Amino acid sequence: MKNFKLVVCYDGTKYNGWQKQGNSDNTIQGKLEKLLSRLLAQQVEVNGSGRTDAGVHAAAQVCSFRADTDRQPEDLLEEIRKYLPEDIGAVSLEAAEPKFHARLSAKEKTYCYRIWNSSEPNVFQRKYMLTVPEKLDIELMKKAAGFMLGEHDFLSFCSNKRMKKSSVREIYSIDFLQRENELEIAVCGDGFLYNMVRIIVGTLLEVGQGKRDAQSIPAILEGKNRALAGPTAPPHGLILREVKY
Amino acid sequence: MKNFKLVVCYDGTKYNGWQKQGNSDNTIQGKLEKLLSRLLAQQVEVNGSGRTDAGVHAAAQVCSFRADTDRQPEDLLEEIRKYLPEDIGAVSLEAAEPKFHARLSAKEKTYCYRIWNSSEPNVFQRKYMLTVPEKLDIELMKKAAGFMLGEHDFLSFCSNKRMKKSSVREIYSIDFLQRENELEIAVCGDGFLYNMVRIIVGTLLEVGQGKRDAQSIPAILEGKNRALAGPTAPPHGLILREVKY
Repeated sequence: MKNFKLVVCYDGTKYNGWQKQGNSDNTIQGKLEKLLSRLLAQQVEVNGSGRTDAGVHAAAQVCSFRADTDRQPEDLLEEIRKYLPEDIGAVSLEAAEPKFHARLSAKEKTYCYRIWNSSEPNVFQRKYMLTVPEKLDIELMKKAAGFMLGEHDFLSFCSNKRMKKSSVREIYSIDFLQRENELEIAVCGDGFLYNMVRIIVGTLLEVGQGKRDAQSIPAILEGKNRALAGPTAPPHGLILREVKY
Repeated sequence: MKNFKLVVCYDGTKYNGWQKQGNSDNTIQGKLEKLLSRLLAQQVEVNGSGRTDAGVHAAAQVCSFRADTDRQPEDLLEEIRKYLPEDIGAVSLEAAEPKFHARLSAKEKTYCYRIWNSSEPNVFQRKYMLTVPEKLDIELMKKAAGFMLGEHDFLSFCSNKRMKKSSVREIYSIDFLQRENELEIAVCGDGFLYNMVRIIVGTLLEVGQGKRDAQSIPAILEGKNRALAGPTAPPHGLILREVKY
């Protein structure tokens, strides 16, 4: 059995997220497993670095799979590209160390949330950015984000109500990039809970709109209660940008 | 009656082009006329600077319309934005001189054709760029484009077989912009025949792929025969970028 590292990008608009779901399958993982199993004539299981929600995109989702094959990665990559649908792309494929596992070996992930902050139209990026017509106070948002940096119990920022494992995560950075009407919030950390980045962004947007104090963040974290944080921002603004090992 | 200048952008993917077509209407002009007629409670006719083909996009299509109204352009613009579908956007609306006509007053138009020149995936721009995996010889394409500059009879670059009016047009510039895997060909002229920019691009692509000599362009122009030029490039790579008055 050989081990492979595959990097894929996808427009998540039409999919029910990364993780496969039984038979009526419209997921990225399901599409990849079906294609690889056919091309390699064996049952292939694909492990992603993490699940992306329905409607969330990826510029570089990393996955790993094992297969009994002598095929060269370059050849296989070319064939994969030929058969993938137009909204899923294979960025790279290479042989991996036997122990490499896309999820278990991941050290750091960066998600970006993109906001179109204008009442002007944005027809070409409408599926990849959230439109917020009201002016946002970015300085207040940065201040609020500062309270989230470091290691915290992020239970208030998790949609999974029956969280059994630890909900402690470390956020390394939250960067704000403004380009004319576009605001990009890049969140980098050791890992994220279910909906965590979207709830962080939903909460920061309330701060930017003056609906919530930047100083309220520490109490939200301490409260360990999902109801204290802001809404879950819509999926289409979110993209998994990078996974480091 | 007042005269208005409206600038719109659109993702042309789902539309049958700019020009309205009888009853079963799925055109940009049709959508705009229907909306404006409803908002202004009168029959409104919208004139575009030119027709864009089915599937072609616009960053700034200019149109004009007359209406008997006291409404301020800013108010009307806000309401138009509220009701337009997500793939059509209103960029601006202003009062225009009584004589202004979007098509008849136009002096210069710029169309851009965007090419993704790589075998790497391009899922996020796939509806706005033509993918050409083989390496293109851009220098040869520039050489071929040079023969098209200036005033010529472009009958060989026109899909309309029963062209009654003059097919003489002047091309002011053809600019090539490369950014990593992206190639943008911007064609600026006093006006364009039916499919003209797409046939120019289809011909330049054949030159870039080594299927046709750059030196063959003058004979194509002189021949005044559509069969001499290259294929019509697909619509989704084309966008109307600017109209000058």
